[in-house]
Amino acid sequence: MQFHHHGYVSGDPLVLPAEGAGVDRPADVPDEVDVLVVGSGPAGMLLAAQMSQFPDVITRVVEEREGRLVLGQADGIQPRSVETFQAFGFAERIIAEAYNIGWMNFWGPDPANPQNIVRISRTEDYGLKISEFPHLIVNQARVLDYFAEAAAHGPGRIAPDYGIEFTGLTVHEEGEYPVEVRLVDGGAERTVRAKYVVGCDGARSRVREAIGRKHLCGISAHAWGVMDVLVNTDFPDWRTKCAINSEAGNILHIPREGGYLSRMYIDLGEVPEDDDHRVRQTPIEEIIRKANEILHPFSIDVKQVAWHSVYEVGHRVTDKFDDVDVDSDRQPRVFLTGDACHTHSAKAGQGMNVSMQDGFNLGWKLGHVLTGLSPASLLSTYSDERQPVAQQLIDFDREWSSLMARKPEEISDPQDLANYYLATAEFPSGFMTQYPSSQITGTDEHQVLAAGFPIGKRFRSSPVTLVSDGNAVHLGHHAPADGRWRIYAFADRPGMGESSALESFGEWLASPESPVVRHTPRGADADAVFDVKVVYQQSFADIDVTQVPAAFRPVSGPLALRDWEKVFAAAPTVWAPTDIFEERGLSRDGVIVVVRPDQYVAHVLPLTATVELAAFFEGFMALQS
Amino acid sequence: MQFHHHGYVSGDPLVLPAEGAGVDRPADVPDEVDVLVVGSGPAGMLLAAQMSQFPDVITRVVEEREGRLVLGQADGIQPRSVETFQAFGFAERIIAEAYNIGWMNFWGPDPANPQNIVRISRTEDYGLKISEFPHLIVNQARVLDYFAEAAAHGPGRIAPDYGIEFTGLTVHEEGEYPVEVRLVDGGAERTVRAKYVVGCDGARSRVREAIGRKHLCGISAHAWGVMDVLVNTDFPDWRTKCAINSEAGNILHIPREGGYLSRMYIDLGEVPEDDDHRVRQTPIEEIIRKANEILHPFSIDVKQVAWHSVYEVGHRVTDKFDDVDVDSDRQPRVFLTGDACHTHSAKAGQGMNVSMQDGFNLGWKLGHVLTGLSPASLLSTYSDERQPVAQQLIDFDREWSSLMARKPEEISDPQDLANYYLATAEFPSGFMTQYPSSQITGTDEHQVLAAGFPIGKRFRSSPVTLVSDGNAVHLGHHAPADGRWRIYAFADRPGMGESSALESFGEWLASPESPVVRHTPRGADADAVFDVKVVYQQSFADIDVTQVPAAFRPVSGPLALRDWEKVFAAAPTVWAPTDIFEERGLSRDGVIVVVRPDQYVAHVLPLTATVELAAFFEGFMALQS
Repeated sequence: MQFHHHGYVSGDPLVLPAEGAGVDRPADVPDEVDVLVVGSGPAGMLLAAQMSQFPDVITRVVEEREGRLVLGQADGIQPRSVETFQAFGFAERIIAEAYNIGWMNFWGPDPANPQNIVRISRTEDYGLKISEFPHLIVNQARVLDYFAEAAAHGPGRIAPDYGIEFTGLTVHEEGEYPVEVRLVDGGAERTVRAKYVVGCDGARSRVREAIGRKHLCGISAHAWGVMDVLVNTDFPDWRTKCAINSEAGNILHIPREGGYLSRMYIDLGEVPEDDDHRVRQTPIEEIIRKANEILHPFSIDVKQVAWHSVYEVGHRVTDKFDDVDVDSDRQPRVFLTGDACHTHSAKAGQGMNVSMQDGFNLGWKLGHVLTGLSPASLLSTYSDERQPVAQQLIDFDREWSSLMARKPEEISDPQDLANYYLATAEFPSGFMTQYPSSQITGTDEHQVLAAGFPIGKRFRSSPVTLVSDGNAVHLGHHAPADGRWRIYAFADRPGMGESSALESFGEWLASPESPVVRHTPRGADADAVFDVKVVYQQSFADIDVTQVPAAFRPVSGPLALRDWEKVFAAAPTVWAPTDIFEERGLSRDGVIVVVRPDQYVAHVLPLTATVELAAFFEGFMALQS
Repeated sequence: MQFHHHGYVSGDPLVLPAEGAGVDRPADVPDEVDVLVVGSGPAGMLLAAQMSQFPDVITRVVEEREGRLVLGQADGIQPRSVETFQAFGFAERIIAEAYNIGWMNFWGPDPANPQNIVRISRTEDYGLKISEFPHLIVNQARVLDYFAEAAAHGPGRIAPDYGIEFTGLTVHEEGEYPVEVRLVDGGAERTVRAKYVVGCDGARSRVREAIGRKHLCGISAHAWGVMDVLVNTDFPDWRTKCAINSEAGNILHIPREGGYLSRMYIDLGEVPEDDDHRVRQTPIEEIIRKANEILHPFSIDVKQVAWHSVYEVGHRVTDKFDDVDVDSDRQPRVFLTGDACHTHSAKAGQGMNVSMQDGFNLGWKLGHVLTGLSPASLLSTYSDERQPVAQQLIDFDREWSSLMARKPEEISDPQDLANYYLATAEFPSGFMTQYPSSQITGTDEHQVLAAGFPIGKRFRSSPVTLVSDGNAVHLGHHAPADGRWRIYAFADRPGMGESSALESFGEWLASPESPVVRHTPRGADADAVFDVKVVYQQSFADIDVTQVPAAFRPVSGPLALRDWEKVFAAAPTVWAPTDIFEERGLSRDGVIVVVRPDQYVAHVLPLTATVELAAFFEGFMALQS
């Protein structure tokens, strides 16, 4: 964590000084805003936290509810989401509070005594191999609390405006604030004009309705009861995630945070066609009875039901996530995120995670367009990138849901589900997303130079040594969600003081041809838009940080202090025993890896490919003068 | 982290429901209080956080300053203190914010060119081998902020009462509130009666003065300038802790949190006898000039001085840390902690750490005596235990200070200082403290059964597997600073269902002879005073947590829920690859390890030594009926 460089900070360094719109932020929503976010769920609150890093953009978040969410239904947190929390500054706190999924156990009928269930297998959670962060279970309300804190502590000082209902919008052809939004605030109707509107208003989204997007309804004929319960029980896996398949039905069992509470998804079976949602009236007593039937010979003695519900599996996705049709040449003004554009069953633990990545994808783009760093055409990449991810999610969820709902006689191999779970682990962890080539994602001619950083996938962190203090750090954890592009220069072989491709690249980065120079506004700090880092192959002890090219030690802030935390070393030490060049398959001739503000790898290029690097950024960034 | 067991918790689980004195806590200090803490420094604020766990005890903290400390001078945090922070719930946050000392480098005159300094050696920080936590540097004001948060979030809802000056006290012979304390509150004099008073009021302690304790003054004839500065420099170790010894003098260089700021202790040389503290007037320009002289051929360009001072090395300790003389049979009523009873040079980074351990030692004792768990005689152990630690500290500091102040010609081997640093590492890490045998510390007949848990030293954590969910956890991190005694039963060899010493011990723990039964108040939860845990030798997969003796799965709270987090397993797994029996030298025949509420090992006994265990607790705990 870096601070004190604008002068000594006495208090919490996560609380940044208010700037721009964050200074004397008005209590009421102004008549004109840059970004109006509708809804304060996971996507909306991530956007609040992200836009707080763009204090020159006036962002407001309106929420119909009168205050903080008290009881959230979502609770599954993918490792990808925990990586995202790290970038917003609260991963370690939420990990300490959450349930950590270490194992998934599978239970099935005892072959010798089929009315009893027995444990068939234990499977290590897939998180282990895919991320440095675990797979968690934690109350959605707490996730929102942490984003709210990040939003309030950012320079934009954003807090949700509660008790305001969205009733409709009209997108006008012209004007600086073309979106006319109709709200009801304290019982009174009013109009707000916005440059952009983001619908984060859930499955019954009125923003979606207002822009005329529809999604196909796909309610399946299978119903599940779900309950969060505090119990005493002789079931030994009460605190372990389990898929339980018995003659009496199926349970997906998910322990929750705090050491006592667990969530059970209990199969209520096929729903007759003429049911007319009557299954949703199933009383809690019946759900508990059914759970005990499935768990036989074990049983649960329910002491408190914290929450319960019945739902029928639904899979829906809208065909586009913004307000312009494919054949239109208008730029989008309204966007949909999360449940507003995709819903599915809860059991794969995906919903909140995908919603947050929607917000992470969109936030920096709005910030860059509204601060003049990029043209408005950047915004069309949002729907292009996120709609296919939602479609993929729905396909996965449909398959996983049907597998979970099978009867024992349909299962030939009891290890089946465990095998499927492991084979497809990358998807539910959040790491299958790979954005295709576009204005902001390069082509893969040079992918071989950095095999472990696939272009279009999220930048996977790895430990390195910070040269200035010799400490082991995770390279990816030095990339806060501050809206900046990142250029990682992995150096070629020569050591300090020898001529090298790295040395030439570092010099070029400070030249008038450099994107860092061309796309950073005059008067701004050299690292205001691009965060440029170097990783040497040598041991940190062989690198003199004061002698690296100046591009990797930019000066910033009112005191014009040089930065000590952009120079890293790969050779193992007692603190960081792995080599990122080995771990991520990086070329020993060096390589440039470009990473987007939302942590996805945008490009991989040789250290000598300066022309290509400049051209890449020119494709979607404005020239500053 | 365990919660939800008293019903569903929607908000921050670290914020516990208010209880006892924490419910409608009065804004003003009442006329009668149980504990009056004078001063809100590290010892005072740790006490606030600790006493907040005893909501039935009325504790107030008076502080002369009008509000929060803004700029603290102490900054060195031992691994032992980070362990303590873990117990108070904020280790991971403060680690993220702090500077982590990975290395200590030693610089000396270049043999070829003695007016220049060169790096002589790099030494890994000792923390690596002694604790799972690092050695940190972080602003004292932030440490206090975190303790203040813990105090405010505990059931006692304790917050310091600012703007109140302590002017004196009288200890009366009789009465329920025998200490008459004189305060000035908002300009007006008033009197408060207390059962106990703790002086945490620093080097110029008026509480010390009021009870007539004096300490020997020992100002040495050596002066040091100290400054926290933001600079640009070509000195490559600006972000690494260094001891710099040059012909021009000595510097102890300590990087601080935030990535830019560093603290320099600059040797100002011998002070003439007739100096009369004139050295303290040394201007900052002279200190900077001297630093540059020592750093030659490197230099610093100071951009901002956050703080600076000049001090002469002083070593002082009072002969006793409470208000009763050795030959008195009265029980103590007034205690001294931290700088009020011991001061020394800042350079060994000890002061704040030892002060916090003073508070940790005293807090639970006050809580137990005031809630009727132990007789008042327990309180005499405070001075008995902490005074020798302070004396040890002063001896260490004196030696380290003189070594640091040597001239190059006095140094025969340039590796000297590095060697001393490593050889004595256990002390400055905070792990040399070993309390001698007393009413609360057993004798060592059975030490061999648990060689890695020396009686009287702090309980050193080690990874184990939580049986109920198969996650790797640090055993010691399941010991929050909640004032409870801990009994760890490390099981003998037999597996589940076989008869074993562990099984018998578990049964005995639930019997009328058990200290858990005898010393826990009637009507209180079974785990209210004793936190009893078991560690099996087998893999977690071989233990059925629902079948362990009930003593290790106590029922608690209004819902009478069984606890899932007291049963652990030692056999390595992919998540916890070490075996605590190997790591801590535990007998495979099993062993009982008793740990105090302040994390020190109190006793080591065989699983069969039930009579001795009962007798041990009877020595200092009241029988409840």
